[in-house]
Amino acid sequence: MAPRYDIVSQGEELLAGQAVDTNAPWISGELQGLGLRPGRVTVVGDELASIRRVLEESAQRAAVVVCTGGLGPTSDDLTRDAAAAAFGVPLEQSPEALAQIEQRYRTRSRPMPPTNRVQALLPRGAELLENRMGTAPGFVWDTGSCLLFFLPGVPFEMRPMLVEHILPRLRGRFALAPRKTVLLRCVSLAESLAGERMAGFERPGVTVGYRASFPEVQVKLHVEAGLDAAALTEEARERLGSQHVFGVGTGPLASVVGGLLRARGETVATAESCTAGRIAADLTEEAGASDYFRGGIVAYANSAKVEVCGVHAALIEQHGAVSEAVARALAEGVRARLGSDWGLAVTGIAGPGGGTAEKPVGTLHLACAGPSGTEHSCVRLPYDRLRNLSVSVALALDLLRQALLRQT
Amino acid sequence: MAPRYDIVSQGEELLAGQAVDTNAPWISGELQGLGLRPGRVTVVGDELASIRRVLEESAQRAAVVVCTGGLGPTSDDLTRDAAAAAFGVPLEQSPEALAQIEQRYRTRSRPMPPTNRVQALLPRGAELLENRMGTAPGFVWDTGSCLLFFLPGVPFEMRPMLVEHILPRLRGRFALAPRKTVLLRCVSLAESLAGERMAGFERPGVTVGYRASFPEVQVKLHVEAGLDAAALTEEARERLGSQHVFGVGTGPLASVVGGLLRARGETVATAESCTAGRIAADLTEEAGASDYFRGGIVAYANSAKVEVCGVHAALIEQHGAVSEAVARALAEGVRARLGSDWGLAVTGIAGPGGGTAEKPVGTLHLACAGPSGTEHSCVRLPYDRLRNLSVSVALALDLLRQALLRQT
Repeated sequence: MAPRYDIVSQGEELLAGQAVDTNAPWISGELQGLGLRPGRVTVVGDELASIRRVLEESAQRAAVVVCTGGLGPTSDDLTRDAAAAAFGVPLEQSPEALAQIEQRYRTRSRPMPPTNRVQALLPRGAELLENRMGTAPGFVWDTGSCLLFFLPGVPFEMRPMLVEHILPRLRGRFALAPRKTVLLRCVSLAESLAGERMAGFERPGVTVGYRASFPEVQVKLHVEAGLDAAALTEEARERLGSQHVFGVGTGPLASVVGGLLRARGETVATAESCTAGRIAADLTEEAGASDYFRGGIVAYANSAKVEVCGVHAALIEQHGAVSEAVARALAEGVRARLGSDWGLAVTGIAGPGGGTAEKPVGTLHLACAGPSGTEHSCVRLPYDRLRNLSVSVALALDLLRQALLRQT
Repeated sequence: MAPRYDIVSQGEELLAGQAVDTNAPWISGELQGLGLRPGRVTVVGDELASIRRVLEESAQRAAVVVCTGGLGPTSDDLTRDAAAAAFGVPLEQSPEALAQIEQRYRTRSRPMPPTNRVQALLPRGAELLENRMGTAPGFVWDTGSCLLFFLPGVPFEMRPMLVEHILPRLRGRFALAPRKTVLLRCVSLAESLAGERMAGFERPGVTVGYRASFPEVQVKLHVEAGLDAAALTEEARERLGSQHVFGVGTGPLASVVGGLLRARGETVATAESCTAGRIAADLTEEAGASDYFRGGIVAYANSAKVEVCGVHAALIEQHGAVSEAVARALAEGVRARLGSDWGLAVTGIAGPGGGTAEKPVGTLHLACAGPSGTEHSCVRLPYDRLRNLSVSVALALDLLRQALLRQT
């Protein structure tokens, strides 16, 4: 069995619910990738006795403990003291740690406040871990049966320390079966359906994890070294339905669509009614989006559809604003107005109000106008307002993605 | 001293870092509001012995334990079994629980899968807690010195159970000093500055909490019964700077702006360059936004500014797309095109590329055109791309808010 790790997240704001602990999930992902088994995550506040007790318990139970937080210079930063108490040693000034802290201040051309000297205190016998990004050094304590790592709680300081110092050391210490992780990103596929389709896929050396990041579903394959990860990925893609897998190890859907457009030297413009700018926002999340995104129209009121996007008022009167005819007119209108290769349009009823018997809440018309004509699709979404809007954005982007893939 | 609570979050996906635990922070906030003191939060996976051990430890340490997750019907739902083992009693079918589960299926007109009968098993002697929103009932165990509550992990099932069953029971069990919580929501104010301005505000019966929900900063006053919460709120607002406090106990900034517009029977339209639809998306988060939001133009490419928003090409050539002149022309143009009372425009360089010596990354021009003219402001933002965009949205909405407040 692989050795177990515990994670200790120290911070009153985490314990009191004023902040969500994002360090533990991230660290857990890294340690699992290495082949270690998770034990427990404990969140503990600013109380010396509590921190000490958690450290003692975790050191008893786990082979590896990663503790974040409580290494700052203020009086509520108690992890150093708690660690020294747990290991039965005094705190001692580390000249090396002090030099690193002083160096950080010199680099920033700022004087070091005297209170920061306390950050150079380490439990006697602990090994220093340099913090390249901040003033709180980390340290390691080895009980013989357990390696305990102490890191600052600020994510952008903590993460490089884990990657640069801790992961290599764990690889050296334990005979771990390294695993390759493959991330398949899916759209228009419910998590439960993904689970059903992947049932029975696990085999010796292969585990499967799921993560719903609504409306996207991510399927993670953990594959031990020596197995054919590429063939397993292909098999998983087939099972999930290759049209649903918009990326393997890629960025989000909008970034995949942007990449397809950029590769073709083509551009898109958006006409959004209910989604009101959310497709445009997604398409511009990455720098350089101006290569493929020209702009769009948020046609919320009917007058905006008519005045700005050139939809005939008669069309809206005849079919209603939420209709195939208006979706097509919006897509073609914005494509013409902005001179783009593609026009992508959405009109729907996100809810909770605005539904009728004929067009209930959740009705969504999508259209994609391109060089060889306009495609349309219509769905009925079952979620609440904000989730209906998220799915609408994903469906629109996926309509464009499918059209781009079909185009040769 | 107030009694202590522990929270146990059960779920392999939480432990393995595939999902972030949002239940524990929420529960912690509720229990603190009641006047209880936080002890520990523990995340534990799908392993019977581990769950049992955590429950035993927490019951020793705390007066109240809330455990979420692991009450579902599948073989990895082990919290029931772990609880029975921890309390030294067998599991028993609860006819009342079974009736509730069957009733839930009848309401949904679906047959109950036989596997779901397992959800009606409770540790012998435990008290049932009804789940109005799902099929997994909760239960309570009283050791005499510790009350343990077991709830499903799905937030929208768990939350009403905590509010309806657990909070009233805790109020009855313990002599707690009830506290009133006042939430002040601030914009254009750094968390550190909020902290400085509130330094020394705490006094007997009054504590202050901070939460940064970038770019918003929330300041929470916890005020014991018998103190004048309204006067304390006013004092805090003055300290923070009343122009920064956009709401007390309200929804987000866009919703406050929407409320001001609705109260005046006025409408807004947006012209967004760098923010590319994010202001429009924020303004339409709440249902009924069509009362005050007409639509907008995402003028990403210069041609979109000219063709769709009516900005003169010469103006862009002379001043550049990121300039006061273009921001004003966008705001006035979109107001005219969409026939709204207000036009709100943003043009800037979100980064990381696109900056020049004269107009560095982070340069942002905002304009708000209204019934009595157009206002402009310019700032330079120091963040990365996505945070620059979030702040841009907040500054634009705040520009409109300030203009609405000045208008009588």
